[in-house]
Amino acid sequence: MAPSTPSLKLASGTTMPQAGFGLWKVPADQAAETVYNAIKNGYRLFDGAYDYQNEKEAGQGIQRAIKEGLVQRSDIFVTTKLWNNYHSREHALSMAKAQNEAWGLDYIDLYLIHFPIALKYISPDELRYPGWWQDAEQKTIARANVSIQETWQALEEVVDAGIAKAIGISNAQAQILYDITTYARHPLSVLQIEHHPYLVQPDLVALAKDLNVAVTAYSSFGPQSFLELPEAFRKRPESISTLFETDAVKSAADAHGKTPAQVLLRWSTQRGIAVIPKSNNPDRLKQNLDVVDGSFDLTDEQIEKISALDKGLRFNDPGYYLHEPLRIFA
Amino acid sequence: MAPSTPSLKLASGTTMPQAGFGLWKVPADQAAETVYNAIKNGYRLFDGAYDYQNEKEAGQGIQRAIKEGLVQRSDIFVTTKLWNNYHSREHALSMAKAQNEAWGLDYIDLYLIHFPIALKYISPDELRYPGWWQDAEQKTIARANVSIQETWQALEEVVDAGIAKAIGISNAQAQILYDITTYARHPLSVLQIEHHPYLVQPDLVALAKDLNVAVTAYSSFGPQSFLELPEAFRKRPESISTLFETDAVKSAADAHGKTPAQVLLRWSTQRGIAVIPKSNNPDRLKQNLDVVDGSFDLTDEQIEKISALDKGLRFNDPGYYLHEPLRIFA
Repeated sequence: MAPSTPSLKLASGTTMPQAGFGLWKVPADQAAETVYNAIKNGYRLFDGAYDYQNEKEAGQGIQRAIKEGLVQRSDIFVTTKLWNNYHSREHALSMAKAQNEAWGLDYIDLYLIHFPIALKYISPDELRYPGWWQDAEQKTIARANVSIQETWQALEEVVDAGIAKAIGISNAQAQILYDITTYARHPLSVLQIEHHPYLVQPDLVALAKDLNVAVTAYSSFGPQSFLELPEAFRKRPESISTLFETDAVKSAADAHGKTPAQVLLRWSTQRGIAVIPKSNNPDRLKQNLDVVDGSFDLTDEQIEKISALDKGLRFNDPGYYLHEPLRIFA
Repeated sequence: MAPSTPSLKLASGTTMPQAGFGLWKVPADQAAETVYNAIKNGYRLFDGAYDYQNEKEAGQGIQRAIKEGLVQRSDIFVTTKLWNNYHSREHALSMAKAQNEAWGLDYIDLYLIHFPIALKYISPDELRYPGWWQDAEQKTIARANVSIQETWQALEEVVDAGIAKAIGISNAQAQILYDITTYARHPLSVLQIEHHPYLVQPDLVALAKDLNVAVTAYSSFGPQSFLELPEAFRKRPESISTLFETDAVKSAADAHGKTPAQVLLRWSTQRGIAVIPKSNNPDRLKQNLDVVDGSFDLTDEQIEKISALDKGLRFNDPGYYLHEPLRIFA
């Protein structure tokens, strides 16, 4: 049998596995096979997004595993996200419906606002990854006057319609969390953020805990997660040493007989944070999941030493890449 | 004649002097005299707040200067702020009215949301500085479910009523600026933030510029501004060397024959940011104003060297002091 993964109880009342598989950068033509294999290796949570453009294929991988009796639908937890160009009530509702149909699994477990910024509508047929450009040739970006409250209330309707079991937000700052909790009719269950030892954000994580919002860390390996992106995106990650080679991470790995990747994941999960690593390597797939079952615990001293690597360094930073003059072309 | 201070054109259409006098920590029984003397020394902008509990007295100082013919009302720019416990539409409207009456100057030039966080109502008669505690003996804090949008729309009604000429927000993060601009009927004219070389926040300042929001820096001297506070608040500022003694600031001061304080203010004003220093010393009062008239310009190299002191270190951080366990008592 596949190992069971500890779960976090969400404010919605549902539970979320504390480790899962992130679908960012998984090519659509490999997504079904990748997801199917991940399930075989014990994964139960899949973290997708409209922007990743592989939801249908990821859903096919899950459907196959269900058909073959490896898992039931209720064993699986699907997270997906509303993209920036669809924040208006009308668009959010139709996208949630269309995304749910693409997954083909009856419902979505967790639906997140991908970024707390509304961009002008682009037909889903015309959106190309990464979906920043209003005009892909001109490289222009156009904001839409849609408030976070309008989008949040649309997500609440998505819950009312039975499409999603829980809702949340990704890439939000503290004050947006505060604001949402003043008008939320359905609870803000999850905050998904970039979180690694170069970007610890202790105050944001503490605030989420105070507000009963579970935290999911993405890019747990820091710069490593960005090295396969186009050159412009690699400037910040390439300017800094890999976390795998830091003394704090290496010495903890050596002490426990684990890999640096496992130490980085355990650094989050041991503090109650969920993780969503990605790997194409079967061994690493298993290793990455082996970080929530309590098979090893970092000492407080090891955790503090790793946290002390904090540089407030954000790699997934549209505010940096997309600011005029567009640094992405610099 | 008093020197004229360069002004910033606000999105509201009105103009704001680029240097002014900050009323935080000015005792009520000295505020009238302090403000009157500041006007004599050329100050035209006064930055107050309900929380500072000296609005009526500050207004009396301005009234005296007007009566004596030193200035006209239209020469003066009054900024004041709505406190956290009065964010609901009803409370915001009545507080704006009461604060305007306290100043006694017919209108307020700029009315700001003091912090983007709503706390439960406390009768103004019972509020004690600093107004954080719901129960001053129990040291409890209670949030109110009032959205930033509700408060912003109340401020727009304050403009409609002719009480304030322009509105804005203090202590807001980037995503709150984005959100307000999606629903604003009257423009967001000013963002007031803690801003000094230990807390540069270049992305936030750049975003404000993109959104045509003028930036006012408070605590321009960094830790210096906090050393006179109660012991608990001094922990962070006392843990770091004063900006006045850094090589970047001292060498620029020496090069221009100015004081370190003047260099720190010019570092902001030269980049288009407004400043609101406070001083009880008549010489320094004049020196602090002598930073916007172009009498000296830092070189690009000097500005960059000062900006490189950035540590992302916030001294006015309720999220730090008020987080459980309350570090203010630690």
